[in-house]
Amino acid sequence: MNKKIYVDNAATTPIDEEAFEVMAEYYKEEFGNPSQKYSFSRNPKKALEKAKEEIAFLINAYPEEIIFTSGATESNNWAIKSVFLAGQENSTVITSAIEHKAVLAPAEFLENKGYKVKYLRPNSAGEITATALKKEIDSQTKLVSVMESNNEIGTIQPIKQLCEIAHSKNALFHTDAVQGIGHVKIDVKDLGIDMLSASAHKFNGPKGIGFLYLKKNTPLPPLIEGGHQQNGLRSGTENVPAIVGMAIALKNNCQKLEENQKKILALENQLLSQLKIPYQKNGGKNKLPGLLSLSFSNQDGEAILHRMDLLGISLSTGSACNSKTTQISHVLKAINLSSHMAKGTIRISIGKQNTPEEIEKTAKALNKILANTPC
Amino acid sequence: MNKKIYVDNAATTPIDEEAFEVMAEYYKEEFGNPSQKYSFSRNPKKALEKAKEEIAFLINAYPEEIIFTSGATESNNWAIKSVFLAGQENSTVITSAIEHKAVLAPAEFLENKGYKVKYLRPNSAGEITATALKKEIDSQTKLVSVMESNNEIGTIQPIKQLCEIAHSKNALFHTDAVQGIGHVKIDVKDLGIDMLSASAHKFNGPKGIGFLYLKKNTPLPPLIEGGHQQNGLRSGTENVPAIVGMAIALKNNCQKLEENQKKILALENQLLSQLKIPYQKNGGKNKLPGLLSLSFSNQDGEAILHRMDLLGISLSTGSACNSKTTQISHVLKAINLSSHMAKGTIRISIGKQNTPEEIEKTAKALNKILANTPC
Repeated sequence: MNKKIYVDNAATTPIDEEAFEVMAEYYKEEFGNPSQKYSFSRNPKKALEKAKEEIAFLINAYPEEIIFTSGATESNNWAIKSVFLAGQENSTVITSAIEHKAVLAPAEFLENKGYKVKYLRPNSAGEITATALKKEIDSQTKLVSVMESNNEIGTIQPIKQLCEIAHSKNALFHTDAVQGIGHVKIDVKDLGIDMLSASAHKFNGPKGIGFLYLKKNTPLPPLIEGGHQQNGLRSGTENVPAIVGMAIALKNNCQKLEENQKKILALENQLLSQLKIPYQKNGGKNKLPGLLSLSFSNQDGEAILHRMDLLGISLSTGSACNSKTTQISHVLKAINLSSHMAKGTIRISIGKQNTPEEIEKTAKALNKILANTPC
Repeated sequence: MNKKIYVDNAATTPIDEEAFEVMAEYYKEEFGNPSQKYSFSRNPKKALEKAKEEIAFLINAYPEEIIFTSGATESNNWAIKSVFLAGQENSTVITSAIEHKAVLAPAEFLENKGYKVKYLRPNSAGEITATALKKEIDSQTKLVSVMESNNEIGTIQPIKQLCEIAHSKNALFHTDAVQGIGHVKIDVKDLGIDMLSASAHKFNGPKGIGFLYLKKNTPLPPLIEGGHQQNGLRSGTENVPAIVGMAIALKNNCQKLEENQKKILALENQLLSQLKIPYQKNGGKNKLPGLLSLSFSNQDGEAILHRMDLLGISLSTGSACNSKTTQISHVLKAINLSSHMAKGTIRISIGKQNTPEEIEKTAKALNKILANTPC
């Protein structure tokens, strides 16, 4: 097996070729600071505005509702810590037990500052139900933050319902959409959300760039302020090449959303049908296409990862950002997976660039490895 | 005049060609998430470590003292707001009246939260003197933040002296070095500073990336937390291509530091000698090479900018990040420039790529424009 097979597209994605080509132009030629007043800055400034319009269009937002950040980790920190920045004392924040650490860490920060934070438990499919939120929300709740889809098991959350419940108590609703955007349809107006976090590198855009969707007239103190770029909401010289690349990558993904989903789902089904070892598929029915969390009885996920790696196949055990530790993932714990199944869990995430041949090789390699490595 | 002339290198710089070439490789080929455990992530991870070592070496720091951020605006916000994040009540922060807005805005944030902030006044050369700091510092002072060099008039500050005074009162010392790093020698150990902010796009690196130098054992709560990247100090999937580009750009600038300075100073002298109109040069003697703040009596800086732009020459009136407003710059006010001189002020910032021909054309254009446009 000479050519590497990359089936860890939930960790990061290869860059869209068109996006990179256009980025190169803004790196090398159109490098002007978009805040300057001379004509050399006109094209970068126009490109910024165009990117904002394109991204807004793709999620059914207004251009002025898109604020560029360095990525979803910044966007999440901004949205969650806003309660502290604004000094909203005696307020409660509700989130879920299966959020990405980029939400859980700021939530813990709030707790350390004396704010009350409640963590909703998912059902065994990884779903945060409307019932769970209804039980916990009260008039003290200022912010509800539930991820659009989970990065480890792929479960898509009932955002529209959760959002309605939050609004019924006058709480703001934020969603970390980093895993789903560009892969499933997201219409911010239909969902009704107030804030949404995204990172370009999860939808074939560049790393180091993302955005926060912020619904018009939603109050939010800046986290990073200074030169008054982006109406003072997020200062710093705009990263024009990356912003332009992000917009193109999102457009190219969204324009072929259904086609990609069909292709990826076919590859997912192919993989599952070619697996010869018993497995448990986590995450329920309503989940991200191509994101497969598979648990094998009495196996070791990390050993599988390393043996697959030796065969040139890149996949994951837990979430990328959590992969330095070998503890059982908080997500798998929260869905009550038994520890022997959790230990034997891998995440395969199929991308639009993967081929049936790659999936066949992945299945064959797994069959071979799992047949030989009982713990 | 067909070819554009760019003499606004203090606003942003053209990208180093070698830096871009290597970045392209990390965008297109080595795109793996450096946090992942398989071999496909080994090269991005190694590149990250190498970039950290290179940058550390160039400013005489240890690699673990370099923390990648999205740029100096983030680094500055982090350093200044740390007082609030840590809940250090009853503490005073001292900064200067001529800082970039990316320091002044977080300082104002602290004031709004009830912290005491003192703003040191510069002398007429734009220098923040040791005497000025000594007068204001006391045992309540937890943080002193004075920029390494000013972005509008180029004055280099006596950082080593200021730092010693801060330490004598057990205050931490932060410097916004965004304008000087890569252009003048900066040795963090010799200067003694605890924190330093930098942005790559000011030294021929890419936009959207920078770092905070954080001296070993200096306590600093994270501003952006989550997946525990960078030892939990700054989370988020690392922007490997931009980080690699930043390290190469800084290396290439620093390796030819004296050569570039000589070349740029020669161009600066050429420009001044070719100017036929009386001018006042702001910023004193100890200033950044190539950064020229020139005031012309009874002229309008903005009109000069626009007329130069029509001739294909890009220069600035105030600082880039402040250029949406036409108020007199806070820096020019602080050095007590009379309002009629402040109004007629332009900033020309010469870069290593500029040529004597470009400078000659710039001087000629200025002579022509200024001879014709008395207000």
